[in-house]
Amino acid sequence: MKQYIEQNKDRFLEELFTILRIPSISAKSDHKADMYFCAEAIADLLVEAGADEAGVCETMGHPVVYGQKIIDPKAKTVLVYGHYDVQPVEPLEKWHTDPFEPVVKDGAIWGRGANDDKGQLFMHIKAFEFLLASGQLRHNVKFLFEGEEEIGSPSLPAWIKAHKKLLKSDICLVSDTTMISEKVPSINCGMRGLSYLEVKVIGPNKDLHSGHYGGAVANPIQVLCEMISSLIGPDGRVTVPGFYDDVVELSRADRKLLSKAPFDMKEYKEFLGVDALRGEKGYTPLERTGIRPCLDVCGIYGGYTGEGAKTVLPSEATAKISMRLVPNQRSSKITKLFAKHIKSIAPKCVKVEVIEREGGDGFLIPLGSSAYKAASRAITEVYGIEPVPSRGGGSIAVLAEVQKILGIDPLLMGFGLERDTIHSPNESYLLKQFFGGMESIAKFYEYWD
Amino acid sequence: MKQYIEQNKDRFLEELFTILRIPSISAKSDHKADMYFCAEAIADLLVEAGADEAGVCETMGHPVVYGQKIIDPKAKTVLVYGHYDVQPVEPLEKWHTDPFEPVVKDGAIWGRGANDDKGQLFMHIKAFEFLLASGQLRHNVKFLFEGEEEIGSPSLPAWIKAHKKLLKSDICLVSDTTMISEKVPSINCGMRGLSYLEVKVIGPNKDLHSGHYGGAVANPIQVLCEMISSLIGPDGRVTVPGFYDDVVELSRADRKLLSKAPFDMKEYKEFLGVDALRGEKGYTPLERTGIRPCLDVCGIYGGYTGEGAKTVLPSEATAKISMRLVPNQRSSKITKLFAKHIKSIAPKCVKVEVIEREGGDGFLIPLGSSAYKAASRAITEVYGIEPVPSRGGGSIAVLAEVQKILGIDPLLMGFGLERDTIHSPNESYLLKQFFGGMESIAKFYEYWD
Repeated sequence: MKQYIEQNKDRFLEELFTILRIPSISAKSDHKADMYFCAEAIADLLVEAGADEAGVCETMGHPVVYGQKIIDPKAKTVLVYGHYDVQPVEPLEKWHTDPFEPVVKDGAIWGRGANDDKGQLFMHIKAFEFLLASGQLRHNVKFLFEGEEEIGSPSLPAWIKAHKKLLKSDICLVSDTTMISEKVPSINCGMRGLSYLEVKVIGPNKDLHSGHYGGAVANPIQVLCEMISSLIGPDGRVTVPGFYDDVVELSRADRKLLSKAPFDMKEYKEFLGVDALRGEKGYTPLERTGIRPCLDVCGIYGGYTGEGAKTVLPSEATAKISMRLVPNQRSSKITKLFAKHIKSIAPKCVKVEVIEREGGDGFLIPLGSSAYKAASRAITEVYGIEPVPSRGGGSIAVLAEVQKILGIDPLLMGFGLERDTIHSPNESYLLKQFFGGMESIAKFYEYWD
Repeated sequence: MKQYIEQNKDRFLEELFTILRIPSISAKSDHKADMYFCAEAIADLLVEAGADEAGVCETMGHPVVYGQKIIDPKAKTVLVYGHYDVQPVEPLEKWHTDPFEPVVKDGAIWGRGANDDKGQLFMHIKAFEFLLASGQLRHNVKFLFEGEEEIGSPSLPAWIKAHKKLLKSDICLVSDTTMISEKVPSINCGMRGLSYLEVKVIGPNKDLHSGHYGGAVANPIQVLCEMISSLIGPDGRVTVPGFYDDVVELSRADRKLLSKAPFDMKEYKEFLGVDALRGEKGYTPLERTGIRPCLDVCGIYGGYTGEGAKTVLPSEATAKISMRLVPNQRSSKITKLFAKHIKSIAPKCVKVEVIEREGGDGFLIPLGSSAYKAASRAITEVYGIEPVPSRGGGSIAVLAEVQKILGIDPLLMGFGLERDTIHSPNESYLLKQFFGGMESIAKFYEYWD
């Protein structure tokens, strides 16, 4: 594969760039056409790589790209999952380059989706192309690329249920996560679930003059702040009643095993530019993101947010709140508990509206499987170091569903790095990881029986 | 005047509309040219009305319009103050008509500035025009219209100091406030001061993936909410140390006098669409806005504020906070106390930046003056009811300065109504108040000796 990459490098980048240029932002309704455009472009890439059948399939929401190559009905089958939708790009002014005009600079690809997940799903198409072209493909391969990962995959579970037979496989291979670092390759053995809600606090029926009414009428921003402030206790724990009921406490032995992942507090704080960390009492930072649930306000707005000063007592204020969940916590249950709690703490002077935005359960992956071992061997050969098992704090909502509906385990071979700042301005993907990932994936097919 | 209004109604509206169409938003730097454009248009109106000299004067910020008519150096002089700048128009989607394309509908003028303060300053130009044209003008009149009222008049005090001689007058006549209601005319006898600051809470040096870091890194929105939440205590009092030190407690007799202003709790809540009010314990709603200081969050933003769901642990969050002050509280002192306090309560995991935006002191107006009596008589004749003295909760930052520098008292003949929703979408000004105001102003000149 190494040689094949060397010979086709420029073509690979050119092909990747054609899909990076499409602003397939699933959260925004005015990008509906871009979703189709991007799905078609990826289906074309699959066909060019040698898939027998590949095309764009309708769902209740954004379309799915499906393609496959059946070598031998008796051979093992790999289901490759990825997503072609990307996060919104705001705040635009913080990008150093156009998010949808990718460039190569300082050894990395820069642009929205360079890593998450267009760059990573592209590695799979090229590893497949190489194996097929060189006559080495021994597995059946099925590709399932969705367009709704960044909004919680609302349509995919139903589509998977409807196409259970078509999707029948032995493993679900995914590259949509990060490694601990370039020097410490890792394989994700679990991810957190997600509950995401929007909370709107409504005060007076119109914006008011803050001089005429200030002091006498409850300010919805103030009330929202009070409510949010009460959601996390002084011990760093989420105060929603029942929130921790289903959380499995890890044994001391398990916590010790996970603590083997290298972590340098000074480096971590320096990378983030903060003087102090904050989180649930009694847990290390890696535990707080790996094995513990949490609550974050992802966005807040209300009143005048423009330049300069405007005095107003606004009519409403809104917060977007996400909760990351650990295995055994059910997203649907937590969403309900949160909605009930936030309404219960609203004072009489305001009304509260709650919109459930997205959700998905967390999951764990068994470490002893033959697939895990093949992936570990592949990565060890490419990186020269054996990967450590890690727990990712992020969420891929649909993978718990894949596990449940298709009865197969996901295998998370992610090649992103923290420095890639996915979901943020200036997303990038190191070429070294991009090509190293392709090579590792090709080797996985070589070693997995 | 009544007859003159009848004859010139259409021309008056046409002239007013030419200045309403100019988006003179002082808070926004890209409207700099509009400020000059509007100032010139108003100077032209003054000249057409008969002012001897009228023109646009440079200040350190937005220009001032000055015009005068000296009848007799020994006659009493009225300084008319007003402002031609307007508030920003966001949220635009809540306007039923274009904010800068005024229309007459349902007996009112609709558009930004229809009342505050273009509509109200225009009444003075026309009352002056009538008195001059009909040979009834007995006073010298000086017009001072500024372009920075909505941003706290940062440049005007220096300009007034530099033009003390030019501005020498006996009274400062202002129409930039409201009456209690159409049926209860009132004259403002005091206004609150203002301190306005922007607070930015800065966490990590970039937006983070809330899955990878959520739970381990302090979220600046959460921290900002906690800080804001702590600014008002359970008794409804502002918790900034020293905030109440200079507040003059009114005597029981004074409070009784002020409580004569009619107030219907049910009507008030219905007008606002709220089930309950909230404010400082121990005071009535009218006292809370009239004689007590308060704190309001006028705007808040941070993280993802677009459509749908985006998971992010944002790098920063910002709030715009105003405090309304009562006489004897000094804005400069309160601003410093607030800035010190907000920094002192910031946890170590974030940095806090404070920007002082604007400020001005509150003031009181003596009720027994000949000018107050003339205004009261004028309004009684036009409205058929004697106006009650009231305390306005709003702020006109510069009037305390006028009082100090020129040694003259303001007289607040305001004709706005709460229904006009100034500072908010769908600002309007009832034609009845617009023309009734003109008439009252003309009569004031008639009765004041």
